[in-house]
Amino acid sequence: VISITSTMSSDESLRLGVITRLFAGQRDWSVDLGDGVAARLLVGADSQDDCCVFQLTGRQELVVGSDYVRGPKFKLYELGLLDEFDLGWYLATANLSDVAAMGAHPIGLLTVVRYPVSMSIESFESVLTGIRDAAAQAGVLNVGGDTGSAERLILSGAAVGITRPGASLLRSGASPGDVVCVTGPTGMAGAALRYFNREQEMGIDAKYEETLLAAWKRPRARITEGLLLGASGVVTACVDTSDGLKGALEALAERSNVGFVIDEPALPLTPEVTQVADLLGQPRLELFFGDSVDFQLVATVSPGNLKMLQDKANLNLYPIGVVAAEPELVLRGADGSCRPLPGTAWRHQEAAPAAKA
Amino acid sequence: VISITSTMSSDESLRLGVITRLFAGQRDWSVDLGDGVAARLLVGADSQDDCCVFQLTGRQELVVGSDYVRGPKFKLYELGLLDEFDLGWYLATANLSDVAAMGAHPIGLLTVVRYPVSMSIESFESVLTGIRDAAAQAGVLNVGGDTGSAERLILSGAAVGITRPGASLLRSGASPGDVVCVTGPTGMAGAALRYFNREQEMGIDAKYEETLLAAWKRPRARITEGLLLGASGVVTACVDTSDGLKGALEALAERSNVGFVIDEPALPLTPEVTQVADLLGQPRLELFFGDSVDFQLVATVSPGNLKMLQDKANLNLYPIGVVAAEPELVLRGADGSCRPLPGTAWRHQEAAPAAKA
Repeated sequence: VISITSTMSSDESLRLGVITRLFAGQRDWSVDLGDGVAARLLVGADSQDDCCVFQLTGRQELVVGSDYVRGPKFKLYELGLLDEFDLGWYLATANLSDVAAMGAHPIGLLTVVRYPVSMSIESFESVLTGIRDAAAQAGVLNVGGDTGSAERLILSGAAVGITRPGASLLRSGASPGDVVCVTGPTGMAGAALRYFNREQEMGIDAKYEETLLAAWKRPRARITEGLLLGASGVVTACVDTSDGLKGALEALAERSNVGFVIDEPALPLTPEVTQVADLLGQPRLELFFGDSVDFQLVATVSPGNLKMLQDKANLNLYPIGVVAAEPELVLRGADGSCRPLPGTAWRHQEAAPAAKA
Repeated sequence: VISITSTMSSDESLRLGVITRLFAGQRDWSVDLGDGVAARLLVGADSQDDCCVFQLTGRQELVVGSDYVRGPKFKLYELGLLDEFDLGWYLATANLSDVAAMGAHPIGLLTVVRYPVSMSIESFESVLTGIRDAAAQAGVLNVGGDTGSAERLILSGAAVGITRPGASLLRSGASPGDVVCVTGPTGMAGAALRYFNREQEMGIDAKYEETLLAAWKRPRARITEGLLLGASGVVTACVDTSDGLKGALEALAERSNVGFVIDEPALPLTPEVTQVADLLGQPRLELFFGDSVDFQLVATVSPGNLKMLQDKANLNLYPIGVVAAEPELVLRGADGSCRPLPGTAWRHQEAAPAAKA
């Protein structure tokens, strides 16, 4: 899925224009095989949600998403900090996170694992074990996919989920006045990348090194959180933070035709992000909002329904601001002063591939 | 999906052993969200079918498959005979063919298109247009997926389909005495690859060059055929020929625990395959049975039900032999003499990547 933003590079913007044009108007598709076997497309590619949605016969909707991950081009893998198990785990999580963002219950994962012939059997097994274990942690199985040799390691996948009728969460639907919440701290994965790739000799506290690395080694799709948000019936829009928190807010803003005023004092900055930013001499909020695959969920809800959500067990929600009518992303400081939201979403960094994980 | 055969290379065999072990016993997985929103896994990764199958609430089964295709490493693309539109078309067809082989009606396609930053907008648009048009020909939409930049062109996908309860076609189920049929000639794509990559100066008839190239430029998933086979209720096993006809027969033999006796005089050899084999000095049946992605379907049916299938409009079926109890693939000549089935399936060629498309 693709985030549209006004600051996107011209190349990205052109390619997005192609997609928008070619896959516009995906309405009214349906099929009826008779005997009650039928499907109707509710959300297609043109909605730019994390998954497409079909209404099936009976009382359910089907969501399906598909994500490619980088294969060997994980910087921390190249640095020897991630192993093949971790890559498999990450692949599974990235795909399951799309289902979580739709508020759906995953029912299965499919993975494409194409390997170079030089990859050992042991490494191959580690990739698949990572996939299997991450799927198991999410309560599903890796039910299929495609393996075989290729010129290099290629990791891609798809995930399938189901929801109650009408319960799928979309990026559209946020209204001015809604509160915007995030399910947990962001910036950890991005901070980890910058930290372990640093030039400085000095480091941060060893305990924080561990939690930073865990953001890459054992990321978690927010499935329980997504299910609770979806089942609540009160969430107006939702997306995951796989392009970073700013990217997530941009996606909601674009699809809901709104803006956001984010309250700086409310942000759940972690000591890891703070220490890395300070060590590297980078603004803390650049790391917090910027490119960082933390697989958190960002959801909007009317103020009157917020407490009901916050009272749910197993659902941490950090209210970080409000939805505004003006289509801008604004950060409001403790003193009430406003400035543009810092951070650079994933899509905007493509011109500098060397900086990518 | 992976074909298991006794002649597989030792490396492939080991990797398959890993998969078999890690994803064994995918039975009894189900989820029930209440209010009739529920799913149960019927066919998982361990079945090695073209798709997984879920039983959903209401009167339907869901099938999902995922296939990676070669990206830029199409030999005919490198030779300038295929363009980006053709690659997109092929990607869509390869994924839809898996749904067809299950006897299901496709309801949507998801595609991963990762492009090198050097790829022009026009070429990028051509890939997506090829995907869109192939999906449209199959009656579905490209409802999602993942685009973005990568180090090279990467094309992968997933397809989703629905069937009536119990109507999904599997690779298991063929019984000794069943007739084995193919929906059309095989060997065309493989012959095209060898022909256009030949060293000989001489060529074949120009009209046959065109049909050979069409096997790569406009392949077709046998969706109508798969639906008719599935809805008939009498097909005992089915698979597509994406690994070649011999690969398809090997897959059915392995999963159904049977063998095949194929009748040489009954084989639908095309003049294209014949001319290319003769020109290159290769055995005709090597091309006919060998590595060739023709997206035909191979199905088994009891002799008493064959005519009913053959009488259906829009379903060409070539009976090419019978299912045998002995787990061997045998070719029986016009004079009744038997020999091992010729041809080399896709999986067995991995040790010689230079020969791949």
